[in-house]
Amino acid sequence: MAMENFKQFLFALSAAVSVGFVSTIFVLRWVFYFKEGLAWDGELAEFNWHPVLIVTGFICMQGIAIVVYRLPWTWKCSKLMMKFIHAGLNILAFIFAVISLVAVFDFHNAQNIPNMYSLHSWVGLAAVILYSLQLVLGVCIYLIPITPIYLRAAFMPLHVYSGLFIFASVITTALMGITEKLIFGLKYPKYKDSPPEANFVNVLGVLIVVFGAIILWIATRPSWKRPSEQVLRSLPTYGDGSAGTKMGTALSQQTDPIDPEGNGDARRRSGKLEDSGQVN
Amino acid sequence: MAMENFKQFLFALSAAVSVGFVSTIFVLRWVFYFKEGLAWDGELAEFNWHPVLIVTGFICMQGIAIVVYRLPWTWKCSKLMMKFIHAGLNILAFIFAVISLVAVFDFHNAQNIPNMYSLHSWVGLAAVILYSLQLVLGVCIYLIPITPIYLRAAFMPLHVYSGLFIFASVITTALMGITEKLIFGLKYPKYKDSPPEANFVNVLGVLIVVFGAIILWIATRPSWKRPSEQVLRSLPTYGDGSAGTKMGTALSQQTDPIDPEGNGDARRRSGKLEDSGQVN
Repeated sequence: MAMENFKQFLFALSAAVSVGFVSTIFVLRWVFYFKEGLAWDGELAEFNWHPVLIVTGFICMQGIAIVVYRLPWTWKCSKLMMKFIHAGLNILAFIFAVISLVAVFDFHNAQNIPNMYSLHSWVGLAAVILYSLQLVLGVCIYLIPITPIYLRAAFMPLHVYSGLFIFASVITTALMGITEKLIFGLKYPKYKDSPPEANFVNVLGVLIVVFGAIILWIATRPSWKRPSEQVLRSLPTYGDGSAGTKMGTALSQQTDPIDPEGNGDARRRSGKLEDSGQVN
Repeated sequence: MAMENFKQFLFALSAAVSVGFVSTIFVLRWVFYFKEGLAWDGELAEFNWHPVLIVTGFICMQGIAIVVYRLPWTWKCSKLMMKFIHAGLNILAFIFAVISLVAVFDFHNAQNIPNMYSLHSWVGLAAVILYSLQLVLGVCIYLIPITPIYLRAAFMPLHVYSGLFIFASVITTALMGITEKLIFGLKYPKYKDSPPEANFVNVLGVLIVVFGAIILWIATRPSWKRPSEQVLRSLPTYGDGSAGTKMGTALSQQTDPIDPEGNGDARRRSGKLEDSGQVN
């Protein structure tokens, strides 16, 4: 990986972490300053766990879980350890999502508000179900050692695509949820009168979109992929902090290592053209 | 491209076209059966142009524009003609989007409803502005013959990423719009009472998500890319309808043609592993 690209990566990663951090601050300020705070009492303060856990867990933590293989300073770690971190963060994000769902169902039941009537709830529940399926299949296929190599290879494009698609769906659902909450929650003045809370939470929605855009950018740059184990093993010393610069030379000397878990073509990294493998 | 993949492509494309068609039927039934129909009178029938033009133009037409290079029966056509079709469909989709915005602003002004207060309007306007920027830059860089090759190559990953990101943002915005409209438009019974219109339009929202998912799947499969001009020219007879099967042999004989417009690595197509160039 050339140094120029490494700087771009660091810039993108810093931007993602910063925007994720600011989004977390925004959602906390929303519930503590504009709304009723947090509690588990069947009232609005219980509902507020929903946006807090979704933004911090199901969006920010899932975003970091998606790009965790791409951090160059983790390339010295074993692939198995990185798989555990990737799976662990996703499982944690899933737990956050489930608790956030329990909060909202519990609140609805306590207040006699119907469940599952809105498009937000339909797409959101579908995303959580697909996410759990992705987790179970991911663990079975990539963490259980007996799964045959050809199955890991065949499933990888679907695993990658589903992961990014579910992440985008969660963000879409969050934006629908913000829309609902601002319409239902703002009475005097209403959402259409643009009170400070409305603009503040709109900005939170925009921040979530920007966070998603940066994560998807990082996750789809071929030159930022974790190199295959074959390439990593061939480096004389990696993991001393200079892996980023050494990678450039090592990769350009490699032929195609077909990696069963989708590490792909080393030659592609060294090309000038960063082809994202999409429409041309 | 192997025949097995070609069948998968046909299945995915048929699914996309079918779901896009059903979505169009759904949005028309929504406005004609459940709502006030279409007119240009400053009343609700004028607003209804907004969902109709967004679903048909800014979602379905844009989706087709994104995958148009990937239709194997167009590989006999010159790249320049395909660029004109790609740009033409996108410009048409943009015109649909602009008219749909005029309809909603005109309706708001006639009814004294504020403009641009909602997250839906913020993200939607940003998407339209980014889309127009993408159109202008795309035409300047890929259709004006004097643009240097290195600029076309350098801009391609951003052009592809932005295209798919804007498409996803438009779908996100549409789902927020559906949420708003069902809350504001349904009074007795309300959205939360799940009248037939609510469930019907929720299904429209799900159809739009499914359409987006299929388009993004087609657009990100490396083996379904239009081959580089170099590969196409090397085929003894292409364009007789058998390009799909002949491609397999021809591609496996090629070395890397670095194509300035991102046609990418021919060898990657012939590999068993379809690496989507994303996280592993």
